[in-house]
Amino acid sequence: MAIAPTNPLREFDLIERLCAKLPQGRRTILGVGDDCAVLAPARGRQVVTIDSMVEGIHFKLAWTNPEMLGARALTVNLSDVAAMGATPTACVINLAIREGLNAVFFGRLYAGLMQAARDAGVDIVGGNITRADQLSITITLLGEVGDRLMRRDRARVGDAIYVTGTLGDAALGLRILQGQVRARGESRKYLIDRFLAPSARIAAGKKLARLDPAPAAIDISDGLWQDLGHILDRSNVGAEMEVDAIPLSTAYRAVNGDNPELALRGGDDYELLFCMPPRISDAALSRKIGVRVTRIGRVVAEKNLRLIDHGRAIADRSRRLSGWDQLEPSKA
Amino acid sequence: MAIAPTNPLREFDLIERLCAKLPQGRRTILGVGDDCAVLAPARGRQVVTIDSMVEGIHFKLAWTNPEMLGARALTVNLSDVAAMGATPTACVINLAIREGLNAVFFGRLYAGLMQAARDAGVDIVGGNITRADQLSITITLLGEVGDRLMRRDRARVGDAIYVTGTLGDAALGLRILQGQVRARGESRKYLIDRFLAPSARIAAGKKLARLDPAPAAIDISDGLWQDLGHILDRSNVGAEMEVDAIPLSTAYRAVNGDNPELALRGGDDYELLFCMPPRISDAALSRKIGVRVTRIGRVVAEKNLRLIDHGRAIADRSRRLSGWDQLEPSKA
Repeated sequence: MAIAPTNPLREFDLIERLCAKLPQGRRTILGVGDDCAVLAPARGRQVVTIDSMVEGIHFKLAWTNPEMLGARALTVNLSDVAAMGATPTACVINLAIREGLNAVFFGRLYAGLMQAARDAGVDIVGGNITRADQLSITITLLGEVGDRLMRRDRARVGDAIYVTGTLGDAALGLRILQGQVRARGESRKYLIDRFLAPSARIAAGKKLARLDPAPAAIDISDGLWQDLGHILDRSNVGAEMEVDAIPLSTAYRAVNGDNPELALRGGDDYELLFCMPPRISDAALSRKIGVRVTRIGRVVAEKNLRLIDHGRAIADRSRRLSGWDQLEPSKA
Repeated sequence: MAIAPTNPLREFDLIERLCAKLPQGRRTILGVGDDCAVLAPARGRQVVTIDSMVEGIHFKLAWTNPEMLGARALTVNLSDVAAMGATPTACVINLAIREGLNAVFFGRLYAGLMQAARDAGVDIVGGNITRADQLSITITLLGEVGDRLMRRDRARVGDAIYVTGTLGDAALGLRILQGQVRARGESRKYLIDRFLAPSARIAAGKKLARLDPAPAAIDISDGLWQDLGHILDRSNVGAEMEVDAIPLSTAYRAVNGDNPELALRGGDDYELLFCMPPRISDAALSRKIGVRVTRIGRVVAEKNLRLIDHGRAIADRSRRLSGWDQLEPSKA
């Protein structure tokens, strides 16, 4: 029951229609349509995460199509589950809808969501639709994990710091969409896709969690500098990071040269950042977990984060050094 | 990472501060502060529900204090868990915050949420804060249930239809707040409290689920007429309901007389509606589940819902009879 005037969109009909063909596996005893969904008991421990994408804050409809938007809303949650080394299992979705969007739009948004859920083996087991002034998609994702899981608070002095993939691509793609950066051809397409259609590193996360000891890990959603800071704070340690080691894609270099600022500050890459003893080469570790990893620094006892360029600290968390005065995040 | 300008509220600091004293029981292995929360395996099956309260749609800040708002956001989810006969265990919270609200406000909102969580034995294990144009609180609540649970699709021909407590109080309280209805003194306070500070029937739900057979059940959030309709649709049956049997509170009668319209159409009461064979008296059943229940009708084979007044049908789902043309909900 709501206190405001009725929206022309008939939410209850809409959710029924959208949910008619939801992917549901054997673990779902009762899906959409009752007061709660009912799931079979989790095998092992359970992980839970909630994340939200709000129009005008996290996306603009002019940049994307509804399918990509739906898929991305799930992916940002999948990435949190990947960072624990867990297996995603089921989700519930809260859709806040505004006037001016029709059932075709929501059908396409759900199609993207359902495809992403199928690809990740996730059951969509429940939902809620409400009216609002802004479109937003809020998803709670559940997952399962054994005794081995990755936490932020397990970085140890002497650990090497690694990242999967390349960094800064999504942030550069966003700036291209915003018209702040110009790019053409393949590079433009690649970078924009990295922002609009990210992947979550689920398989790599599960393989990492099986290592002994399991690494400390986080997904890079807010940017390398900030997310590494979360690991250091939670683990009560510091780090030194080599600016030249930060992996940049060919497209990134083509558009932005060697300037690593967006790779340091930019979010939305959904790569994994993890810390573990450096026992094998990057190449061997990459083969082991099925995705390219790059060693970018090391964990130290002194509780600071230093960025090193040819042996010289050019930025740290406590001081602002020339040219890097924007490294501390704006809490955006 | 967000695409819009930074809000003066520093969300990350805020969530850290709010979550410093979250209630967490033994089932929580890892609470707020990592990519996901980690929970011990559920005992039995798991239930999941998500619900959202949006400013201007579901509440106005002028009507309530932040503590009541926080508590109510959890209660609407607790009620869904109660309707399954399950035990609530843990929740994650998405807070969409707008400008103009300060940290004191959110501290009080969380205080109300935490108190409600403690009262219900629920761990708050995770959260997310985002900016938006409207304040909204979206909660996913998890719970546990044994083999016996209550579903909407289990109503059988011959079942009696029962409700807990009294109906229409919250809808009348809302109309008092909106200035559409005038009331004074104790009645005014009682009815407004029923809207602003509802209770979820968790204990009654758990006791009902243990009956054999477990009743079909739903919580009355959208109004008796509509929510009974959900049970009938899902169970593929119809019903006859006696208008005089609908339980009205003393305060409701004092303000609204015997007019049952708000008790039929009004939502937000969060009472339980359930269907089961009428083997014992209302009084005995009330004693058994610890809350007053009233038999209001019976389940029939013909797929309609008839409202009976002194033996005469005065409204049904397919036709609109005089005086009751607003019974079919406006999908609000």
